[in-house]
Amino acid sequence: MTSAAGAAIELKEISSAKCFGGLQKVYEFYSNELKSNTKFGAYIPEGAQNKKLPALFYLSGLTCTEANFIEKSGFQRYAAEHKIIVINPDTSPRGVKIEGDDESYDFGTGAGFYLDATVTKWSENYRMYSYIVKELTGIVFSQLPVDQKRVGIFGHSMGGSGALSIGLKHPEIFRSISAFAPICNPMNCQWGQKAFTGYLADDQSKWKEYDATEIAKKYDGPEREILLDQGTADKFYHEKQLLPENFVEVQNSKIKVHFEKREGYDHGYFFISTFLGEHFKFHSKHL
Amino acid sequence: MTSAAGAAIELKEISSAKCFGGLQKVYEFYSNELKSNTKFGAYIPEGAQNKKLPALFYLSGLTCTEANFIEKSGFQRYAAEHKIIVINPDTSPRGVKIEGDDESYDFGTGAGFYLDATVTKWSENYRMYSYIVKELTGIVFSQLPVDQKRVGIFGHSMGGSGALSIGLKHPEIFRSISAFAPICNPMNCQWGQKAFTGYLADDQSKWKEYDATEIAKKYDGPEREILLDQGTADKFYHEKQLLPENFVEVQNSKIKVHFEKREGYDHGYFFISTFLGEHFKFHSKHL
Repeated sequence: MTSAAGAAIELKEISSAKCFGGLQKVYEFYSNELKSNTKFGAYIPEGAQNKKLPALFYLSGLTCTEANFIEKSGFQRYAAEHKIIVINPDTSPRGVKIEGDDESYDFGTGAGFYLDATVTKWSENYRMYSYIVKELTGIVFSQLPVDQKRVGIFGHSMGGSGALSIGLKHPEIFRSISAFAPICNPMNCQWGQKAFTGYLADDQSKWKEYDATEIAKKYDGPEREILLDQGTADKFYHEKQLLPENFVEVQNSKIKVHFEKREGYDHGYFFISTFLGEHFKFHSKHL
Repeated sequence: MTSAAGAAIELKEISSAKCFGGLQKVYEFYSNELKSNTKFGAYIPEGAQNKKLPALFYLSGLTCTEANFIEKSGFQRYAAEHKIIVINPDTSPRGVKIEGDDESYDFGTGAGFYLDATVTKWSENYRMYSYIVKELTGIVFSQLPVDQKRVGIFGHSMGGSGALSIGLKHPEIFRSISAFAPICNPMNCQWGQKAFTGYLADDQSKWKEYDATEIAKKYDGPEREILLDQGTADKFYHEKQLLPENFVEVQNSKIKVHFEKREGYDHGYFFISTFLGEHFKFHSKHL
């Protein structure tokens, strides 16, 4: 269904470079969900010529494009080692020119929050949830050598929020979930409240659809282990934007969280790159 | 001598982040050679509290600042593994405002070519050779926990030119040398001819002082093995800007070059990050 739709989309290859034996590519296409051109990264390890490989979707945090994770994390080494295809989308529509979309780093451009906006002004383009779950997966599954039965999701900060919420809402697509310093309970932090109010207005029942902690409370799918990494020197953790404890403390026998606190690590890419190897091992075990 | 001078310089810590157990720092200070403020990166692995560690100086290529290698290469993983301090300077003076310094990517700002300019207009500030060999080493040896007897140098492209030429001119400082896609014979390529003419005017005897191939011909120090990596899909290799064969073919019994051609790799950071592990192993063996 999504695959058939994805098969018709034409991908334009923006770049391709050899890295750890595989190819790091960036593709662009016109997204029907975002009503704009969008880019995504695709790392294809050596060996994908001969058989389908498992895949990981990585969702980035505030202000990022697809480039940050590709250039700064060093993930290709681990993707090559474990023979996993890695797909990483942009964090919002680009170039759609909605008034106010560039006014702040935590709303609008670079801050799509992986939800479908309902407020009229944003609802035409800001559909990152449907973009990821339907359109991008459809394209990837139909056009890249991915084994659809072995797909996981992970992300960082706002993208960690996206990975936890999308992963738990769609266990039929994503078999493994992990996150670096995710926004775990956006309804109860400033970033989340600003974004949800802006994109979804005041209806808190809508907010709950995109709040990982609320989603975890109701989760009734197959059992899931989740790896959640948090640096202790992360200023956003101390400012209570992330609230990992709220997620960890959810009582749901279907979910087991491995909560790792990393002494002295901050919120940035040096934290991610240090522990990426463990995340790849974790996903590899579950895929 | 240099150490005593370096000890008096005050370093300002611009940033510090934990990464692979160690600390990735950026320092700034006023350089007497460059007559301007300059930054450099310093990665200090865990364990440097208790004893002095070997160090590697990394010289970057055209257009780079100290940030590129720090953010894009993933070197910290290997530096942590081998317990090597890594120092990486900027590629030119900054903010000195000489007419024409921002007109092209391959001359002036971001393109210091690791030489001491003699042309009056540039000679006050463009002294990257003396900056690296005297001032920066002096500071690093006196203020960071470096074992001065175990120091190597490596670099990329223009920085590969710097690493080969400085490494061979100063075997008393640098015990190991490697390079990624270095400009090996700048006197015979467009990049080098433009830079040497601009900084050194037409005196080709001066040019030879900074040309790795010419320096290798006359090298008479202790025996040196050099690791030289070159991607076969590197467009600057095909445009004859790099000329590694000219360096490899130098007949000098004191120098043994391990020339590695890497099938399908280009000139960028994906190439560097793929083979960095081998360079750290190489240096570790020789330090």
